[in-house]
Amino acid sequence: MQTILILGGGKSSTYLIDYLADSCALQPRRLILADLDYASASAKLRGRTNTDARQLNIENESDRKALIGEADLVVSMLPAFMHPVVAKDCLELGKHFFTASYETDSLREMKGEIEKKGLFFLNECGLDPGIDHMSAMKIIDSAKAKGEEITSFKSYCGGLLAPESEDNPWKYKFTWNPRNVVLAGQATSQYIEKGDLKFVPYHQLFRRLETINFPGLGDFDGYPNRDSLSYRKVYGLENIPTMLRGTLRRAGYCKAWDVFVQLGMSDDSFQMDLPENTNLRQFLNSFLPYDPDLSVEEKLGNLVRDLDFGTWEKISWLGFFGSRRLPRTKGSPAQILQSILEEDWALQPEDKDMIVMQHLFEIKTREGMKEVTSSLVSFGEDSTYTAMAKTVGLPLAIAVDLFLQGKIHLTGLHIPVLPELYEPILKELEKNGIRFREQEKTRN
Amino acid sequence: MQTILILGGGKSSTYLIDYLADSCALQPRRLILADLDYASASAKLRGRTNTDARQLNIENESDRKALIGEADLVVSMLPAFMHPVVAKDCLELGKHFFTASYETDSLREMKGEIEKKGLFFLNECGLDPGIDHMSAMKIIDSAKAKGEEITSFKSYCGGLLAPESEDNPWKYKFTWNPRNVVLAGQATSQYIEKGDLKFVPYHQLFRRLETINFPGLGDFDGYPNRDSLSYRKVYGLENIPTMLRGTLRRAGYCKAWDVFVQLGMSDDSFQMDLPENTNLRQFLNSFLPYDPDLSVEEKLGNLVRDLDFGTWEKISWLGFFGSRRLPRTKGSPAQILQSILEEDWALQPEDKDMIVMQHLFEIKTREGMKEVTSSLVSFGEDSTYTAMAKTVGLPLAIAVDLFLQGKIHLTGLHIPVLPELYEPILKELEKNGIRFREQEKTRN
Repeated sequence: MQTILILGGGKSSTYLIDYLADSCALQPRRLILADLDYASASAKLRGRTNTDARQLNIENESDRKALIGEADLVVSMLPAFMHPVVAKDCLELGKHFFTASYETDSLREMKGEIEKKGLFFLNECGLDPGIDHMSAMKIIDSAKAKGEEITSFKSYCGGLLAPESEDNPWKYKFTWNPRNVVLAGQATSQYIEKGDLKFVPYHQLFRRLETINFPGLGDFDGYPNRDSLSYRKVYGLENIPTMLRGTLRRAGYCKAWDVFVQLGMSDDSFQMDLPENTNLRQFLNSFLPYDPDLSVEEKLGNLVRDLDFGTWEKISWLGFFGSRRLPRTKGSPAQILQSILEEDWALQPEDKDMIVMQHLFEIKTREGMKEVTSSLVSFGEDSTYTAMAKTVGLPLAIAVDLFLQGKIHLTGLHIPVLPELYEPILKELEKNGIRFREQEKTRN
Repeated sequence: MQTILILGGGKSSTYLIDYLADSCALQPRRLILADLDYASASAKLRGRTNTDARQLNIENESDRKALIGEADLVVSMLPAFMHPVVAKDCLELGKHFFTASYETDSLREMKGEIEKKGLFFLNECGLDPGIDHMSAMKIIDSAKAKGEEITSFKSYCGGLLAPESEDNPWKYKFTWNPRNVVLAGQATSQYIEKGDLKFVPYHQLFRRLETINFPGLGDFDGYPNRDSLSYRKVYGLENIPTMLRGTLRRAGYCKAWDVFVQLGMSDDSFQMDLPENTNLRQFLNSFLPYDPDLSVEEKLGNLVRDLDFGTWEKISWLGFFGSRRLPRTKGSPAQILQSILEEDWALQPEDKDMIVMQHLFEIKTREGMKEVTSSLVSFGEDSTYTAMAKTVGLPLAIAVDLFLQGKIHLTGLHIPVLPELYEPILKELEKNGIRFREQEKTRN
């Protein structure tokens, strides 16, 4: 009897929990789901065979370690800053460790000891990072096996709304951590294009766009995300001339979001303390130059270049030209902006989300240049069974299942870029409806 | 016999050292100047009566404490991060402590103990902060004494070149720490204008300009600097509708510097690792979008709005459109930019610098509104006896001298905003040629 421990039963754990809870009826294993909210954890397990909910305050070290001690394998769905803490416990207690989050330096520091103890630590096995790695590596390895040379690889991903739920001018609601959405891109993005290194500061990021099309869904804005350069090594593409990883938003979103960036309204580096009855119009005005003769609208029009109707409509729809009170008046500009958006961009129970991912490859073959486009579209069912939860949770659940079945023989610290990992996981994802569609175009 | 210890005999200590070294012949006191470079310290003292140079590695705690133990009063001209360390030593050893740097939170934490021990710790007694506080408080206190109300206070300061040395299109060279110049303004600036709080992110800062004129010198760009709001309390102007502190550059400088800001070239938050033979043109290109059909010049023209001839000339003069090699290829963009500017903006031995400061007050009197403009202009003699060293060092030297003569009776933690400090210091500064000229205009 093997014991799986899932830490954290939040929004993005739905599919992960279901997949692994269902597996306990078929395999000699049991599942413990630990969460701060016992009732919620228990409800998610729905009394399935060999499953067990527990209440846990993750910051209570002795409770946490006692629970980890009961398990063979730990899946952390906690906020990212907790991963190194849990990983350390797993290392100490000799447990395998799985997450959908980035492999960080603090994880890398444990690499030697993980290997020495014969443990398996798998990170970046969710959506992005996760499915992106696996689906890309499948194409990259296949091209390499045929002796082809990949000259360009761009990969975009976005967590958005299904078209039927796009009922505001932004075509956006929070299907994911609001704070991460507000702070998205707040580091210099780095990529390489035709051999030229490119660096994009935050205040240029939402202008450095590429239009990405999904057949049947239309156009999206793609902007470069974080450090794409480091992935050259991860993917074994050290000398590739073009490599870019990016984020997708609905066409027009980025131009409007850039208004907040230009104003400094997504700044998280200092605290504001505004009068208690400040309204959205006054909040906006505090980022505009003083001018006794101009309205807020006129000052904004002067500050932002090419303020078009679509952008105007988006800003206006959020209430920035009106007298609605700020939901909070103390905090960083980003925190105050988030509080506004949380009111306007709240996902309604009937809303459906959508995950879109697209890889664009240019490959030099013996016959000439080939363009390969590989696209994934996944729709959510409602605001609980979201596409986000499905695409983040299933790869991780499948990896856990395969590992416990003895179908993965690796030890050490890994992300899913090896065929031994991505082949069986992608195959099982396809059975669950997560399937890439490839298009090939040959240029001679 | 009282002993003064000056820690750090760098560029900005020249006048401070001379003033206090000369005083040792007139007063019952001696001066120790400690620096990492003994020969340089010794040369600066020129064998004057009761003066003594010492070699000191400031990070050597026991040597540092031994030296501080010999003194009655310590003047720290070290880099700002060393001040709290030295202040702690002074507190422990019961010595008075003087700097021209900002009073930081770590200093404020010592406030109670400084008072308990009856010591005198004086910070912000240089140019800016320093002379700005003193000259402003003189006007503020005088207005208050007359029952007048100050409705607006803007204060600008700049360390620049004397007109005769303005021999490049920027009209700028490094007369001060180059790193501080490159990173200037990298925090959201905050001020208040006609009762409206205003917040300016870094990428808008060099566009939020006010033109400041000095009779006989012409126009300067003034931009808001850091947190002006906190000075309302410092100056006893809690309810003032307009309060702004700013930095001055020659007219046109800010628009050109903004090009670097917009490109992300002054970013200090990540490390670049460029090919060794990268030239300035390629460095510039790495911040521009890829376009196979456009030149670097065309791409820059598209990215920066209103790129006028004056701006173009400044960027071009630095060599950004040419093939000169980068002085360094590893480091943050800001460090690489600094290495370029250090070659082009080096102060030559015959160059003269200039300090400009201007306070602009609007004061409500019984007779109506009054505008008071108070301006200071100070020229350097050469690249050693600079206006910067004079205006930073003399206020501090004078404060030390007055304190040791028993003419300042304060204890505790202070900045020079009290009449007991600013009145005698300003008087002595005038004798040394540092004198504000006031203009008054009445509006009825």
